[in-house]
Amino acid sequence: MTTDPLTTWSDGPAKQAIVEFVRSVHGDGSSPAVPVEQRVAVFDNDGTLWCEKPMPIQLDFILRRLVEMAEAQPELRDRQPWKAAYERDYGWLGAVVAEHYAGDDTNVATVLGGIVAAHHGISVEDFEQQADAFLHDAQHPTLGVRYLETAYAPMIELLGFLRANGFANYIASGGGRDFMRPISQELYGIPRERVIGSSTSLSYTEDVAGGTITRQADADVLDDGPEKPVRIWSRTGRRPLLAAGNSNGDVPMLEFTFHTDLPTLRLLILHDDAEREFAYTTGADEALARARADGWTVVSMERDWATVF
Amino acid sequence: MTTDPLTTWSDGPAKQAIVEFVRSVHGDGSSPAVPVEQRVAVFDNDGTLWCEKPMPIQLDFILRRLVEMAEAQPELRDRQPWKAAYERDYGWLGAVVAEHYAGDDTNVATVLGGIVAAHHGISVEDFEQQADAFLHDAQHPTLGVRYLETAYAPMIELLGFLRANGFANYIASGGGRDFMRPISQELYGIPRERVIGSSTSLSYTEDVAGGTITRQADADVLDDGPEKPVRIWSRTGRRPLLAAGNSNGDVPMLEFTFHTDLPTLRLLILHDDAEREFAYTTGADEALARARADGWTVVSMERDWATVF
Repeated sequence: MTTDPLTTWSDGPAKQAIVEFVRSVHGDGSSPAVPVEQRVAVFDNDGTLWCEKPMPIQLDFILRRLVEMAEAQPELRDRQPWKAAYERDYGWLGAVVAEHYAGDDTNVATVLGGIVAAHHGISVEDFEQQADAFLHDAQHPTLGVRYLETAYAPMIELLGFLRANGFANYIASGGGRDFMRPISQELYGIPRERVIGSSTSLSYTEDVAGGTITRQADADVLDDGPEKPVRIWSRTGRRPLLAAGNSNGDVPMLEFTFHTDLPTLRLLILHDDAEREFAYTTGADEALARARADGWTVVSMERDWATVF
Repeated sequence: MTTDPLTTWSDGPAKQAIVEFVRSVHGDGSSPAVPVEQRVAVFDNDGTLWCEKPMPIQLDFILRRLVEMAEAQPELRDRQPWKAAYERDYGWLGAVVAEHYAGDDTNVATVLGGIVAAHHGISVEDFEQQADAFLHDAQHPTLGVRYLETAYAPMIELLGFLRANGFANYIASGGGRDFMRPISQELYGIPRERVIGSSTSLSYTEDVAGGTITRQADADVLDDGPEKPVRIWSRTGRRPLLAAGNSNGDVPMLEFTFHTDLPTLRLLILHDDAEREFAYTTGADEALARARADGWTVVSMERDWATVF
């Protein structure tokens, strides 16, 4: 290659690992090229492709909907999680997350109940319109830009580099599949059929205009942890060659990205750049330990990224 | 078009409807071309792309496995459905199907219990190898050819015609997704990630060689009836432009193939050719009534297909 394929990446071991991996996929004197149909790459979204602090973007979307509901139905204002949303009591929500990391999911069920109720009973098309409008309009609370501008430039460049080398890129996120679909092509060049994520149950009812698919008030798939390899297999029928994640929930997906006879690359994004983004390892401790033990490629945002956004 | 794109189809209303639909997708003076990413076509498999009589091909695969199990474990020989499989008692199985159509699913649960037990506890890779070997080796019981040769030549030509016109073809089958995936590219030119179908629950367990995904003994998704539009949406994020089916379980999928502002085509394959294939409408009565009421295109195997296989 005569030109730098990754100008937003600083020279260093992570960039080198990516370039060498892509080169190896094309084969050399001793190994054949990997067939194009096997070039599958999977990416977590929150904290891997776009910013997840101070809260996941979809959580903001849901909280705003809970506020709307509490404004329309005053009796909800005394019930969690509507109460916290209505009173902007982010401390209560933060405590639930802290309890979760400490192994106590008592209040997680309460929050999940609100999440699935927030968009219950609307058609998938209407939900998509709401998500699309939110993602194009809403501002990040501290970075001073719209949410769509909090996607990481080096990861977008990596997606393009892989695509140019015959890869099919998939999102494999714990976030909502139907929340990301309206913007995945525009933002990441990933078509909607390659978005894998969590979903609520959906129900089909017939009508005169082609039937309607409606969101139900219960979770169907929570695409995290050991469910990620299962959903990747179910969607693609393949083990990926490359996976990128940033948290403990990505460990099984990274582990699953393995072939005895083909090149593979596992990237773990490390949030260590408080100046340009956020610095945190909560929820990533097991992933970092596995990366160090098994030689996965840790991507330091501070060291490896020339620009972040 | 100067050459006939559908040489295995006889001239008539069905062939004409397909050619006109494909032409309309390219737009004309009054309407623009449909963007390529919206050109999604979905196909049922059993009875639509390949032969489903005297029994669905996957049922033969399962029965052979039940026989193996009964040979290895004699105590199974007194239990249904192993007993029927071991004794080649197709009358018992036929009675279960007849009961099902009459609204009595008492014995269906027994059969399903055997189906999910048949390949319980094996890895998805091992299952795929077994399905692949069976599909390449096993003979159809009456047609005198291997199962892979019972795919319908006119449908394979149609798939190619659509592909050449920018369509992404998907299988949306009530049959097993992982059963069809090893042969979908070779037989239909449909890559494995575009196979939608029924599935058992899968479970991921970590190990030193990239983890293992194992089939569990319970059904996850039965991709039939109103579940078909839900699975098509979940996989593609789109409403199709074209759908083809042959039975009542395909009605919601055909209904869902609707746009107010884009051309659509709904094909219903009618098995009316006892000489070259089989003649039956059991399980297709509602679909035929809907086709006649709503102007869906009925494809008569006898009238519309110049060749069948």
